[in-house]
Amino acid sequence: MKSKFIAVIITCILLSNMGLTQTTIIEDFKPSSLNQPGQEYPQVNSQGYARFKIIAPAADSVRVSLGLGGRGGTKLKQMPDTSWMGTTEGPMDEGFHYYNVRIDGGKFNDPGTLNFYGSVRWESGIEIPAHDQDFYALKNVPHGNVVQVLFPSPSTNTSRRAFVYTPPGYEKSKSKYPVLYLQHGWGEDETAWSNQGHANLIMDNMIAEGKIQPFIIVMTYGMTNEIKFGGLRNFKIEPFQTVLVDELIPYIDANFRTIAKSSHRAMAGLSMGGMETKMITLNKPDVFSYYGLLSGGVYAPADIKDKSKVKLIFLSCGSKERPDSVKSAATALKDAGFNAVSYISENTAHEFQTWRRSLHELAPLLFK
Amino acid sequence: MKSKFIAVIITCILLSNMGLTQTTIIEDFKPSSLNQPGQEYPQVNSQGYARFKIIAPAADSVRVSLGLGGRGGTKLKQMPDTSWMGTTEGPMDEGFHYYNVRIDGGKFNDPGTLNFYGSVRWESGIEIPAHDQDFYALKNVPHGNVVQVLFPSPSTNTSRRAFVYTPPGYEKSKSKYPVLYLQHGWGEDETAWSNQGHANLIMDNMIAEGKIQPFIIVMTYGMTNEIKFGGLRNFKIEPFQTVLVDELIPYIDANFRTIAKSSHRAMAGLSMGGMETKMITLNKPDVFSYYGLLSGGVYAPADIKDKSKVKLIFLSCGSKERPDSVKSAATALKDAGFNAVSYISENTAHEFQTWRRSLHELAPLLFK
Repeated sequence: MKSKFIAVIITCILLSNMGLTQTTIIEDFKPSSLNQPGQEYPQVNSQGYARFKIIAPAADSVRVSLGLGGRGGTKLKQMPDTSWMGTTEGPMDEGFHYYNVRIDGGKFNDPGTLNFYGSVRWESGIEIPAHDQDFYALKNVPHGNVVQVLFPSPSTNTSRRAFVYTPPGYEKSKSKYPVLYLQHGWGEDETAWSNQGHANLIMDNMIAEGKIQPFIIVMTYGMTNEIKFGGLRNFKIEPFQTVLVDELIPYIDANFRTIAKSSHRAMAGLSMGGMETKMITLNKPDVFSYYGLLSGGVYAPADIKDKSKVKLIFLSCGSKERPDSVKSAATALKDAGFNAVSYISENTAHEFQTWRRSLHELAPLLFK
Repeated sequence: MKSKFIAVIITCILLSNMGLTQTTIIEDFKPSSLNQPGQEYPQVNSQGYARFKIIAPAADSVRVSLGLGGRGGTKLKQMPDTSWMGTTEGPMDEGFHYYNVRIDGGKFNDPGTLNFYGSVRWESGIEIPAHDQDFYALKNVPHGNVVQVLFPSPSTNTSRRAFVYTPPGYEKSKSKYPVLYLQHGWGEDETAWSNQGHANLIMDNMIAEGKIQPFIIVMTYGMTNEIKFGGLRNFKIEPFQTVLVDELIPYIDANFRTIAKSSHRAMAGLSMGGMETKMITLNKPDVFSYYGLLSGGVYAPADIKDKSKVKLIFLSCGSKERPDSVKSAATALKDAGFNAVSYISENTAHEFQTWRRSLHELAPLLFK
């Protein structure tokens, strides 16, 4: 009896130290919007808790990698019907999360959900409905296309894949369009901005609302042959820079109705894609005029040799990252005479909700 | 000793009954071309054996669904390093195969491979190199695009997805093109013909070789709201027919440079997609002029009311399916005055290698 009492006290101290209060979990769980057709699990409730169910009757242990930070995910328990179930210990941040499932020590995906390429593997994904999810919702508005192109790349001796977002009306129009080159993060690929980021729907909705002038977005793979799967050490920008600047941009300008001038060309990227954006925009100041780093570092005024070639510097991150660094860098750039804008995504971390919102903030500032 | 001897005898009888001889497995296994980046397993050897390796140290049993027919797949054994490994008991048919992994009674995907939508779930895929793989290889030729469109569908009250293959040069050309509407099979979706079938590469290669006149291919989801996940009982064609004929075709004709006439419009499908093709072409004789059933049944002469509206009937299947039925149906159609062609894919079953080859045979016959 005494030991139980002490356990309760310790639990209360631990919970209060971790900023948790004993919340009642509301039983309004619904299948995640990213589930495979007909799949009931994983589920999410209105508070942002995620609940998992895995069928593996004879397993000894099942653990989901998603959970509150630093606690090794969520351990599932075997139910009387032999299924394994568990709920996160607290609400997850709004938006998209990668995860995987540990079954008897092996790493697998949840058969309930769609897969998304991240961490150099196809991972499970779950969506915690966000209060602002309307801006990337599939609506009854004119939709642009996402065009898979295979472009010749002599430097890597293959045909490489890119996805090209063309805005609604592109096919029938005779207009030429500015272009944003938009890069994914480490371990992701050229599918990320459409699949996880809904970049096409963000654009469709903003165009339908008259908030932006239509432009093209080009997304390609940024982890070229210099990167071994596993890390960013010894990263050299030249192989990707060659693919992007010498191969992809000429292909896009030759095959799509673009305004093929640096004044109408932007580059932005998330995380590692931001690092690449910074390196390439500084190496090639005559190629891009608009720069965006999304959770991907900052520019210092001294980094840029010719101020006249830069029309916009956009810096962003989640409030759970290093917002002060982003804000103070933008202030320093503004003080030095640059058109710099910072954006902080509230209550999000180094995840796709930060980057969806960042694209939504960046797009209206481009090509003005 | 006696029981071991009897076991060997029985095994020999079983093997000879199943037409197997004791073949030496050649140890030239290489990673499957469909593996995720950097993944060593699954592997395939020059004889067509597949070898699997799954990491799940504490599992009790691991079984891969792929294996020789009727034997429940391939059971993996735990190795001294705790990994689970196994090799199929015999060579697999050439081409693409779906599979999944049973771990302690649960159905998961192999973390080593890419996923492909089949059986109403994202499945693991493996590729057994085929002697004729050149016709769908990624080559240094001009490539067409695969365009994701979201088209309005009032009948299902949503925006639906289709993929549109546009041939090389489409963007710069002012020409109009004929269109093939090409359907997937049961449990698959609109990604199947590109991902599993390499329809775009098949077209690129044939166009580069001057074997066909370029045309557009449109691929959309054929399992509309009438089908519960699980079976084809009570299948009604009307919901999909409405989406295809009343919504998608007008959208494609309005947004792509098509020759918007039945004389330049084809429909084909594999398996269930063949069943849909038969139903819709017969219900709507003024919409399509070229019909293709790929492992998807046959037409009888009496099915078709107005012979003058049909320019081609193409029937195909694998030699391990029901080739006689396909051949005799084509003969009966020819005897009745139709331009009917049959094609049998040698040494393949109800799988994608049959349908890749079928598309390769069908394409040169279209729009003549």
